[in-house]
Amino acid sequence: MNLIPVKTRILQKNENLFLFFIEYAEKNINRVIQENSVLVISSKIVAVSQNRIMNILDIENKESVELFRKAVIDEADEILVDKNKFFLTVKNGVVIANAGIDKSNSKTGEIILWPENIQEFADIFSEKIKKKYALKNFGVVISDSRVTMRRRGTVGVALNWSGFWGVKDERGTKDLFGRKLEVSTVNIADNLVSAAEILMGQAAECIPFVIIQNLDSGLFTNIQQTHKSAEISQEEDLFQISSN
Amino acid sequence: MNLIPVKTRILQKNENLFLFFIEYAEKNINRVIQENSVLVISSKIVAVSQNRIMNILDIENKESVELFRKAVIDEADEILVDKNKFFLTVKNGVVIANAGIDKSNSKTGEIILWPENIQEFADIFSEKIKKKYALKNFGVVISDSRVTMRRRGTVGVALNWSGFWGVKDERGTKDLFGRKLEVSTVNIADNLVSAAEILMGQAAECIPFVIIQNLDSGLFTNIQQTHKSAEISQEEDLFQISSN
Repeated sequence: MNLIPVKTRILQKNENLFLFFIEYAEKNINRVIQENSVLVISSKIVAVSQNRIMNILDIENKESVELFRKAVIDEADEILVDKNKFFLTVKNGVVIANAGIDKSNSKTGEIILWPENIQEFADIFSEKIKKKYALKNFGVVISDSRVTMRRRGTVGVALNWSGFWGVKDERGTKDLFGRKLEVSTVNIADNLVSAAEILMGQAAECIPFVIIQNLDSGLFTNIQQTHKSAEISQEEDLFQISSN
Repeated sequence: MNLIPVKTRILQKNENLFLFFIEYAEKNINRVIQENSVLVISSKIVAVSQNRIMNILDIENKESVELFRKAVIDEADEILVDKNKFFLTVKNGVVIANAGIDKSNSKTGEIILWPENIQEFADIFSEKIKKKYALKNFGVVISDSRVTMRRRGTVGVALNWSGFWGVKDERGTKDLFGRKLEVSTVNIADNLVSAAEILMGQAAECIPFVIIQNLDSGLFTNIQQTHKSAEISQEEDLFQISSN
């Protein structure tokens, strides 16, 4: 398994992200787009390409704090915790800070919202790549960062994905001693995004794409993916946090 | 960044894990142990090498369920949620199911507990590798799987690590537009372990080691690591889950 970072310049608003990707992928790396690969795309660059940017003046300003709060409340599907300048929210089935709104990596006074129609975006992007390079097994996943309980530092989280099984259900397969596994489902999408986060960084790296090569061919599928496959019912969830 | 799985046979109890690793690493892969690499080691194989195995007869048996419950309660530092056959616990600063006890991948009736003295283990293991291969930048991280809130499928979590910065603090560094990042700390250790989990699997893969090569040299350090650097105070934690 190899990870190849694709370094770019800063994307302009409303620029075509597919052409932008192809240009930098082909410029930076020789023969990079191959079978059994997944392309990790930062949600921020998808959002910028969709012009999902909001001007809130200056984030230190009192009025701006209110605009930021309003944006989070508007964007979130559910507010779990409200700490005034920080929220724990649920968006698109993902537990994430501030409904995924990014205050950094945008011009001063601007905030970047989550992209729109992420599933459709991932589906179309992966189809275009498959067609252009005549590939059978290729996937796309849109990445963001999340916080986890009691733990310092973000890890990767997958918003939507296409072309591969985001969640690998191993229930029914056998363990080392031939016993059936009781509960053993691996979130491949989140793990791929976490791997890419090591290279992407959070600051001025300008690495919005990471290509992960030489993956197991069994991970790939043509069956339509949705983030619903990564959602669990309240009964299954070990975390009994209450939204108040 | 490359990830190389090291497939092995099943480790016998009390076998020397360092010699076991060297044998399979050198057998499977040519010139694998090099500068700027991190070795991910499954916590299960560390535990087996320490004979941290408990016989609880048959897990389906009523008495065994009680023995399992007792083992979790004994092992956990804190019980967050008790769902009878499943617990959400805190152990070694990590929010994890069942205090990290594994019911699979052990012989029927046996459960595998967490390894002991994990920090010391990681320190000694990485020192031995550095010495044997005359390396300056090399790290070791002990891996496990964790569940996250509202999300199906496990992702990787780092128990302890040595030789590299587990948590990369980017506060004070600049973003794309030259502004200082407010909060941007990446948990490199968890991301490395998540990357390895894609290859390790949960079933009969028998891949207890993954070597991650070609990492940024800036990630490495000789400064003593501890999992405390990944712990956050209650005030900083966005998750306001209450242990009851």
